Amino acid sequence: MAQAATGAETSPARRSRLTPEREAELYAAVLDLLREVGYDALTMDAVAARTRSSKATLYRQWGGKAELVVRAMRHHKPVDVSDIDTGSLRGDIHALVLREDDCHMEQNSALMRALAMAVHQDPDLLRAFRELLIEPELAELRRLLARAVDRGEIREDNPALRYVVHMLVGGFAARTMIDELPPTQEFLTSYIDAVILPALGA
Amino acid sequence: MAQAATGAETSPARRSRLTPEREAELYAAVLDLLREVGYDALTMDAVAARTRSSKATLYRQWGGKAELVVRAMRHHKPVDVSDIDTGSLRGDIHALVLREDDCHMEQNSALMRALAMAVHQDPDLLRAFRELLIEPELAELRRLLARAVDRGEIREDNPALRYVVHMLVGGFAARTMIDELPPTQEFLTSYIDAVILPALGA
Repeated sequence: MAQAATGAETSPARRSRLTPEREAELYAAVLDLLREVGYDALTMDAVAARTRSSKATLYRQWGGKAELVVRAMRHHKPVDVSDIDTGSLRGDIHALVLREDDCHMEQNSALMRALAMAVHQDPDLLRAFRELLIEPELAELRRLLARAVDRGEIREDNPALRYVVHMLVGGFAARTMIDELPPTQEFLTSYIDAVILPALGA
Repeated sequence: MAQAATGAETSPARRSRLTPEREAELYAAVLDLLREVGYDALTMDAVAARTRSSKATLYRQWGGKAELVVRAMRHHKPVDVSDIDTGSLRGDIHALVLREDDCHMEQNSALMRALAMAVHQDPDLLRAFRELLIEPELAELRRLLARAVDRGEIREDNPALRYVVHMLVGGFAARTMIDELPPTQEFLTSYIDAVILPALGA
């Protein structure tokens, strides 16, 4: 019985009532609502109203709020980042942040705000959050830093190497919370040149 | 009528029903609860239960949740930071983060998580948040950086000067969200030495 319940979460049959287009539309609406009101205030009633669905349909398809939000985040995959290789550390890090336009960066900021508290309370949400927003970026960052070390641009024992993600997160978070401004491409490239490259001795 | 209502918010008479000790206890309980459940889930019922007050008393004294939280944050003033002056930039920045013990740093992290979404939706909360957690630190940071420039430790035109708070916020935020570890004194001093001082060319 427990097995069947777990299997049902990923069963294609269970989802086949919605077309892929309708599902994508619904997930996009869930993420929009999440950015607007935050996780706690996101109710199934609000999702039903926004997406013109019945609550019964939502519960039948997803079981509850946590699963719906996790699936919406998983559906909204980050862009593929595996092809950045400009030949220089500066070029690579700039390319990393320039890949997302200003609108998408602001949307990601809003999603992080909306989930900051909830991910500390729900392990499933935390896992989806990491898979969607954190891990792909971290993996790409590690690859481009390793290439810069190989090229001799960064010393292998530079202690700032393990803090590059902290510096990047600081750029995003403080820009929003302290400066109360959106994290634009212009701001981030200026921040990379002023902070990250000098700290790496590059 | 409007004037009277505004005046009542700060009227000593209105608060005189609680002793200062009882008020401090109540504010501490509100902040504890806020860190545990977040702003959205913080209900007046939960505050009443935790503090063994009646909801009627809470509403009579504070009017509502936003005012209660703002007053709790204002009551819980940050430690005075105006006396840091060790004679070196490194000493000053270390002193700035070492002032708070590991327990208080974790409490501040929890408060930031709890309020991340709400401060974007409530200007009164945002103002209290800035006054409590942001502005005193920023003012002290600006003073100690200005002294380092005067001593010749940092070049006046170093572009990293305006991003020191971004680097610090990144240390706190990424330590919690990416590393999933508490922002300890040991971590922060290592981060300052690896990132902030090299970026400042110091």
